[in-house]
Amino acid sequence: MPRPWKLAAVQMDCHLGDIPFNLHQMTARLREAANEGAKLVVFPECILCGYCFESRDEAFAHAEPVPGPSVEVLMLTCRELEIYTVYGLLERDGDRLFNTLALVGPEGLIASYRKIHLPFLGADRFTTPGDRPFAVHDLNGLKLGMNICYDGSFPESARVLTLLGADLIVLPTNWPPEARLNPLHVVLTRAFENRVYYAAVNRVGEERGVRFIGLSRIVAPDGTLLAVSESDQAEILFAEIDPTQARRKRIVHAAGKYELDRIADRRPEMYGPLLQREERA
Amino acid sequence: MPRPWKLAAVQMDCHLGDIPFNLHQMTARLREAANEGAKLVVFPECILCGYCFESRDEAFAHAEPVPGPSVEVLMLTCRELEIYTVYGLLERDGDRLFNTLALVGPEGLIASYRKIHLPFLGADRFTTPGDRPFAVHDLNGLKLGMNICYDGSFPESARVLTLLGADLIVLPTNWPPEARLNPLHVVLTRAFENRVYYAAVNRVGEERGVRFIGLSRIVAPDGTLLAVSESDQAEILFAEIDPTQARRKRIVHAAGKYELDRIADRRPEMYGPLLQREERA
Repeated sequence: MPRPWKLAAVQMDCHLGDIPFNLHQMTARLREAANEGAKLVVFPECILCGYCFESRDEAFAHAEPVPGPSVEVLMLTCRELEIYTVYGLLERDGDRLFNTLALVGPEGLIASYRKIHLPFLGADRFTTPGDRPFAVHDLNGLKLGMNICYDGSFPESARVLTLLGADLIVLPTNWPPEARLNPLHVVLTRAFENRVYYAAVNRVGEERGVRFIGLSRIVAPDGTLLAVSESDQAEILFAEIDPTQARRKRIVHAAGKYELDRIADRRPEMYGPLLQREERA
Repeated sequence: MPRPWKLAAVQMDCHLGDIPFNLHQMTARLREAANEGAKLVVFPECILCGYCFESRDEAFAHAEPVPGPSVEVLMLTCRELEIYTVYGLLERDGDRLFNTLALVGPEGLIASYRKIHLPFLGADRFTTPGDRPFAVHDLNGLKLGMNICYDGSFPESARVLTLLGADLIVLPTNWPPEARLNPLHVVLTRAFENRVYYAAVNRVGEERGVRFIGLSRIVAPDGTLLAVSESDQAEILFAEIDPTQARRKRIVHAAGKYELDRIADRRPEMYGPLLQREERA
């Protein structure tokens, strides 16, 4: 049986374009979370460099390869503290720019995820859509899937990760006020409909007139809120993640007179080819 | 341009197994809703006959063909009032039993929908899973899609209807207390993620120890609540449905510095074959 994990969701601000400052802050938060027993520490989208760049050149100047400098630094902290972390950054790969998450542990880079769904906002006006499939990563028995911000609006993002076996889906975000229904309703729905743990980790602070609203939450597979920020201020949320809970998809109520399994009860043969088609019918 | 429609969602009780009484009540509600200007009146799941049958024989005894007796009766009311209605019933087709919605107008039966996702509860312990694909029906310019209760837990149900062009998705339900997260969060998410009107119409009352919780709601394409029941008492909700709103999928905020389209921005090529596969990977 996989053991439970203590998860930390770090709702925080950063300084646009100031990677050394941000790395210093992130390292301090890693230490704080590890002191509370966290084994996996998740930061917001683009927390390494900020998000609201005004040009492609400006964004590119604050991007780095993955693995690259920040992975090297954070690996050392993870090794010292015996923890794992997921954090957002801008990645450059040749001439291309991606909105990326790095999953780093004591041995270095374990995996990265390039944001698949892009809104026209901030740095995403200049990034290339993620070109690698959704994937699930095994952390000593915990199966972790990664989405970023706008991915969360598309039910397919969490659904595909669930069908790949995810126990926990993390959603680092940069939610502005217009995205408010996401923390209030969508995040809980993603956990509930997939019966997985779901952790949305948002920015706070403001960049060039764009304010980030906080409201991070960690939701259990049954839709229970395990940890919630009700503000737009910095804080760290903690919750215990038990992979066995996410794998018990069958729900029995009323002494067996009411049973359901929102994964096994799917009817894929009735969904037709539409979900994968490019065009609307 | 299609004209706006006034929709009525009839949250009501019925008497288990007493079709004449229920038809009489439904006819009265049709008249009441039409008096308020409604052109489309939606009733809960299985409202014609009730839901909590204890055996297949008992359920089958209260099922009827579609079209059949209740379609004949309600067609006459629709013709007199110049309206359309959607209502739930148990349908028999040879030896098979389905949990069905009938869409009826002045000319008679327009379409029916057989519930595709079945929980193990009430009459659904004895019904056959819906065997016909999701479909959208054109009511003088309003494109209507139908789901039933547990279908709403599966994002694929509303997604397929949206990709088929639905402006409005109706979800007649029989939600017990255990399904409470559906009205509180999932219904709003379905409207928001698909940018369609979404109307969930629940039962009230109690059948053989199963209590139905009401909490019906009509949600706009932007996730705004247009009409809400906050109780488990009978009432009729009204809202104006403007198909052109549901077809404007592109959202522009902040003078064009923030734009998105939750349908066009999908990346079907990244969802892989998983969404249609039978087995989990």
